[in-house]
Amino acid sequence: MKLKIAVLPGDGIGPEITQQSVKVLKAVADRFDHHFQFEDALVGAAAIDLLNNPLPEATLELCKKSDAVLFGAIGHPRFDNNPDAKVRPEQGLLHLRKGLGLFANIRPVKAYDKLIEQSPLKADRIAGADMVIYRELTGGIYFGDKFTAEDGQSATDVCTYSVEEISRVAHLAFKAAEKRSRKLTLVDKANVLETSRLWRKTVTAIGKEYPDVALDFLFVDNAAMQMILNPTQFDVILTENMFGDILSDEASVIGGSIGLLASASVGNESAMFEPIHGSYPQATGKGIANPVASILSAAMLLEHFGLIEEAEAVKKAVELSIKLNVCTIDINKDNHYTTEKVGDFLEGLIS
Amino acid sequence: MKLKIAVLPGDGIGPEITQQSVKVLKAVADRFDHHFQFEDALVGAAAIDLLNNPLPEATLELCKKSDAVLFGAIGHPRFDNNPDAKVRPEQGLLHLRKGLGLFANIRPVKAYDKLIEQSPLKADRIAGADMVIYRELTGGIYFGDKFTAEDGQSATDVCTYSVEEISRVAHLAFKAAEKRSRKLTLVDKANVLETSRLWRKTVTAIGKEYPDVALDFLFVDNAAMQMILNPTQFDVILTENMFGDILSDEASVIGGSIGLLASASVGNESAMFEPIHGSYPQATGKGIANPVASILSAAMLLEHFGLIEEAEAVKKAVELSIKLNVCTIDINKDNHYTTEKVGDFLEGLIS
Ligand SMILES: CC(C)[C@H](C(=O)O)[C@@H](O)C(=O)O
Ligand SMILES: CC(C)[C@H](C(=O)O)[C@@H](O)C(=O)O
Repeated sequence: MKLKIAVLPGDGIGPEITQQSVKVLKAVADRFDHHFQFEDALVGAAAIDLLNNPLPEATLELCKKSDAVLFGAIGHPRFDNNPDAKVRPEQGLLHLRKGLGLFANIRPVKAYDKLIEQSPLKADRIAGADMVIYRELTGGIYFGDKFTAEDGQSATDVCTYSVEEISRVAHLAFKAAEKRSRKLTLVDKANVLETSRLWRKTVTAIGKEYPDVALDFLFVDNAAMQMILNPTQFDVILTENMFGDILSDEASVIGGSIGLLASASVGNESAMFEPIHGSYPQATGKGIANPVASILSAAMLLEHFGLIEEAEAVKKAVELSIKLNVCTIDINKDNHYTTEKVGDFLEGLIS
Repeated sequence: MKLKIAVLPGDGIGPEITQQSVKVLKAVADRFDHHFQFEDALVGAAAIDLLNNPLPEATLELCKKSDAVLFGAIGHPRFDNNPDAKVRPEQGLLHLRKGLGLFANIRPVKAYDKLIEQSPLKADRIAGADMVIYRELTGGIYFGDKFTAEDGQSATDVCTYSVEEISRVAHLAFKAAEKRSRKLTLVDKANVLETSRLWRKTVTAIGKEYPDVALDFLFVDNAAMQMILNPTQFDVILTENMFGDILSDEASVIGGSIGLLASASVGNESAMFEPIHGSYPQATGKGIANPVASILSAAMLLEHFGLIEEAEAVKKAVELSIKLNVCTIDINKDNHYTTEKVGDFLEGLIS
């Protein structure tokens, strides 16, 4: 298979981890006789520094004409602590999601047997946890109007959802549930929010088309608690943009490290693959960042194009590396490997 | 001291737990020679059933002329699963908060030594955790405009915050931090939301007035993760309404049971005390609900009026009951006491 892959390393640890997943993808291409063509582009703080634009036109163009985007991470503290900054790295990511129409963000979470000890949660609570979060990604309060009053005395963010926006991600989630344990939990705040009531109504109606999938509902506050109390109850979680952001980061504790969690963001025309962790600026260049989330995102890329055997090879390699403790410091405290060494090891297993 | 206390038992387990805290408050009044006068009023689904109004005018009036409100719980599943219901129990609670001007919700969370085993979190992560969450309670997306388009194809919730709304709760949080470990963490999503940037700016400015308090910032997604990874890092958390709702329910796992968590909601003229758990309809009337959250809310009531010794007596009694395992089934699986028996025991300790 021929694939044109846009590589957007971004900020902080983005470049060093993305380098490892590109390496792994090249090994896959070699072994399985595919042709993957990679092209790098600027995004985030790196792009602001050079072009004063977190998503340069050329980058968006490249992504549009590529088959897939491999994304690193975005964000830098010098913007976070400046509420007046007009241009911010995160806008690059948000414009990219919107520009490519990536309406569904898919985040699998599972407890690796070997890592159960790493988790802050007790082993008996998380053993067997295996869920996937479908987060709506181009709507809600992220993309509604936002403004500050002229006198600077108040600010507003608007959250809007349409039936169409809810439906398209809901269908993907129901389809995923059909292939998994056939349970879908909608997380909302329907006792307070009008948008949540529209979600509940729309998803209930769509649920009729998937009679094999058991649908239930949880308020987001309760969901945040249940995620820790009893994570094995979840199979597919469907939720809106902001709640999905919060819950998926929270869910990362189940796996033992956020450095393991991959995600795919898909739309009708494009697909992007990125770790769920951020740019982790304090770790930049130290060789301590875990490349596995990015590498597993690359595996999701392979799956997305139907390269199932290839994706399995990557996932198996990751599992073996965890079993053998060939891991970065977040997982292997005593005798850790560098970012690059982990990448090399995985590359070697696949080649 | 003379206190007029409005008692709003509400729905589900609300009445049975509130009965226990009234009992405890009466024991306190007897022992310390106070005069507490209690008056009941309707709220929530119970009020809808009788008067088609989740917050009858008479209830609000009673609360306004009382010194404090003791609140049970609110909500019923027959409304949750009906997105078209025009009248909902939760409106009663929200109108009450707004009507009484209760702009700050204060939720202390701590790990009881005896209960550390109960928590889904590993002991070494939570030992010593002791934080208090200051949640803004009468602003944000809870109280902004909300509407569905005429064609029913989209819905909107508006989130607005003013400098004034942010400031008044921020001052309370900083003052609390001064009396505690002098650390305040603002949780927001300033990399995406305009309101969050106003929070960050306003709180940073106010922080200058409290030079002894170390101020830091966390994005809400990261905070949801840190709450589990490393809860002892927190002292005072300050956040907006929706994020506070989610984070405080999540934080309840640290204590081992949500049935232990109390809250105070305060404004300039009124104060209300309520457990953070909900109406738990499945448990109604079974005698299994934990009354401790309500009883500790009563202790917060006593503290609020400067009755420190009295509040300590209640808290000591609760600690002893936990030590002796005189607890409901959420905590004492094998040999549990009923809601009423726990109340009786605490009443007995105080009398
Ligand atoms: C960087 C930020 C804008 C982003 C988000 O909130 O969506 C990140 O937290 C994520 O989850 O991908
Ligand atoms: C019942 C509901 C409206 C309420 C809220 O969301 O504020 C509850 O969850 C709480 O935290 O007190």
